[in-house]
Amino acid sequence: MIQFSQSAQNMRSSEIRRLMALAADPTVISFAGGMPNNSLFPIEAADDIYKSLSLQKKQTAFQYGPTSGYPPLLESLSAYLSSRGLPVEKSGLIITTGAQQALSLISKVLLDPQDRVITEFPSFIGALAAFKSYGAILKGINLDNDGIDIEAFEAALDDKFLKPKMVYLNPVFQNPAGTIYSKKRKMQVLELMAKHPDVCLIEDDPYSELYFDESDKGNVVPLKTMTSNGSSICYVGTFAKIFGPGMRLGWLLGPKDIVEKCELAKQSMDACSSTFNQVLADEYLRQGKLAPYLQMLRPTYKRRAGIMLAALQKFMPENVTWTTPRGGFFVWVTLPENIDSSDVFAAAIKKGAAFVIGNAFDPQGVRNNSFRLAFSHTPEEKIEIGIQMVAEAIRQVSK
Amino acid sequence: MIQFSQSAQNMRSSEIRRLMALAADPTVISFAGGMPNNSLFPIEAADDIYKSLSLQKKQTAFQYGPTSGYPPLLESLSAYLSSRGLPVEKSGLIITTGAQQALSLISKVLLDPQDRVITEFPSFIGALAAFKSYGAILKGINLDNDGIDIEAFEAALDDKFLKPKMVYLNPVFQNPAGTIYSKKRKMQVLELMAKHPDVCLIEDDPYSELYFDESDKGNVVPLKTMTSNGSSICYVGTFAKIFGPGMRLGWLLGPKDIVEKCELAKQSMDACSSTFNQVLADEYLRQGKLAPYLQMLRPTYKRRAGIMLAALQKFMPENVTWTTPRGGFFVWVTLPENIDSSDVFAAAIKKGAAFVIGNAFDPQGVRNNSFRLAFSHTPEEKIEIGIQMVAEAIRQVSK
Repeated sequence: MIQFSQSAQNMRSSEIRRLMALAADPTVISFAGGMPNNSLFPIEAADDIYKSLSLQKKQTAFQYGPTSGYPPLLESLSAYLSSRGLPVEKSGLIITTGAQQALSLISKVLLDPQDRVITEFPSFIGALAAFKSYGAILKGINLDNDGIDIEAFEAALDDKFLKPKMVYLNPVFQNPAGTIYSKKRKMQVLELMAKHPDVCLIEDDPYSELYFDESDKGNVVPLKTMTSNGSSICYVGTFAKIFGPGMRLGWLLGPKDIVEKCELAKQSMDACSSTFNQVLADEYLRQGKLAPYLQMLRPTYKRRAGIMLAALQKFMPENVTWTTPRGGFFVWVTLPENIDSSDVFAAAIKKGAAFVIGNAFDPQGVRNNSFRLAFSHTPEEKIEIGIQMVAEAIRQVSK
Repeated sequence: MIQFSQSAQNMRSSEIRRLMALAADPTVISFAGGMPNNSLFPIEAADDIYKSLSLQKKQTAFQYGPTSGYPPLLESLSAYLSSRGLPVEKSGLIITTGAQQALSLISKVLLDPQDRVITEFPSFIGALAAFKSYGAILKGINLDNDGIDIEAFEAALDDKFLKPKMVYLNPVFQNPAGTIYSKKRKMQVLELMAKHPDVCLIEDDPYSELYFDESDKGNVVPLKTMTSNGSSICYVGTFAKIFGPGMRLGWLLGPKDIVEKCELAKQSMDACSSTFNQVLADEYLRQGKLAPYLQMLRPTYKRRAGIMLAALQKFMPENVTWTTPRGGFFVWVTLPENIDSSDVFAAAIKKGAAFVIGNAFDPQGVRNNSFRLAFSHTPEEKIEIGIQMVAEAIRQVSK
């Protein structure tokens, strides 16, 4: 039976519904949804692909497929992951119904009620919900601009009374913080993890292709590529940000025994992910549609982030701070401790701007002097005026 | 953590993999896969639909959607379900990633480890796996030609020591038995269920549109339409058999409170089902593609079943019996009690024919003097020769 005890999760649920309704309201400037703008999807590529499909491929697309994934996609995805330096040969690979299902499967396979999971604070709502739905107790460790607070992380790993079973990190262009781990911090994390071989590391990596500048290409490398022990890491990825979320396709590249258990769990969860969408994603990779799409996306998101950061600089009160993303979708704003972002939200929405309040990203659902701004979804010409509304809302609440 | 204790489930997993490999071997005549033949999918309809999509609809198809489902599909599906007499207004409706996910969600929401679930014997592998993965203890009640053995069902419902929490039935063209409940048996089931309002009834109904003869149109009506208390029934359906399994789209029409909990559970399971496929399914319903497709499928499956039944009559030894389906995909074959269908399988596969052995459909994974033949997937011209091989295998094992 699902764990319904966390009022925070229920709150999040209604919160998300409310925000989705707001995001759909064309009169509201929404920085809430962590999603691409509809105008950015590779529709022409999809048209090309659909036209190119043989009758036989279309028929295959309509059929059930193996639970682990459509074999040609496993092949083309492996080639893509190998090209990024990931240890595909030494790992198991399974296609999942979005990265969310990968997190759900890992939770189903590894977690028992009351198990401890270390996450970042702030952390991804969907991951927190997956862990909690299997009864996990979460411990959030603060992020700074270089990654997770390494001393606090070490203390949590070493905690003999509250021994963790799992660590969940999103090192590159984190959701919701927008930050990227420094190389040094990554190495420190890997060194600590090596001392705890019984703790499973989940590396969630949805945004690393979305760096703004080529100079960061060397900094977006996954943890899983940086250690000889990489095959022990559960590396979770997704087509959501490099093709489209509506495809609901993600993957888990992890230890073979865990991936095998995930496959068994997936059989009873949804049997297989959509073959139709897997055929499209396979052709997307094979027909070389990914690289030009990324070349279009990177400067687009860079421009949006730039507009948002300039507006924050221009309008925000002095005692407000925010992160400076070098990729991804998000800026994380921190308010003075005595200000509750729910109050700011209420004031901002009256002015016509929306975002996601901070406690949704707190594993404990408590800390709320912060909020997430997504620049991925908002039309460029509305970003500045929207940020001005949010800044005015903060001033109003601060009085 | 997933329940891995059932060796039967693990066996099934490897069994399914082996059978899928066999079904893919073009030299084997496979009656194993419970799936449409690739040549039967509505590819032209899909082409028409894709061509008809506006840019805006394609963009929506690429985006995340609400967890409960793409609103236009919820609308068109509601209209379809209403036209079949289902109490849509009084129920909650959620789109799921295949009917399998609906079963998984219901299990996650309602079942605790050691809870009892009453199923038919034989019963659907995927449902058994879903219930077991949440730790349920299953009780299989024999089917006869009119439905579940009503006395044994009553006794199981009344069992005070092993009180059931849930009942799972597949009344129309059952997988794997191929049988349909008589109207009388349906009423008896509903009367007994009315005495146990605390037990949740799951009605799985994937095949009811696939009746062979118009005269059965009045007999395929769901239990959920036959009682004033229908809104309490969890009615599970799927696009797999009326559009394509590769779409991974199913639904749960159930009590509003249960559907609401399923929506919360689905948020952390896969966030939403593929919007892309939901857009296609919505247009499929709205553009009137379903009715002509069913008009093509019904005589096709009827013809295949007819060929199979004639071949069984012609080749099977005297002490073997089988069901006579009036719709759906399956024939269920029962052997003398001393014959193990694993032995028959081993002999048949050497001759070049495959099927699924009986214990895969036994909630206890034990009874094995039976097997399932699917006529949905095998090319017509191969059915007779394949059945002859199976019959020879039985004779060989019986010696």
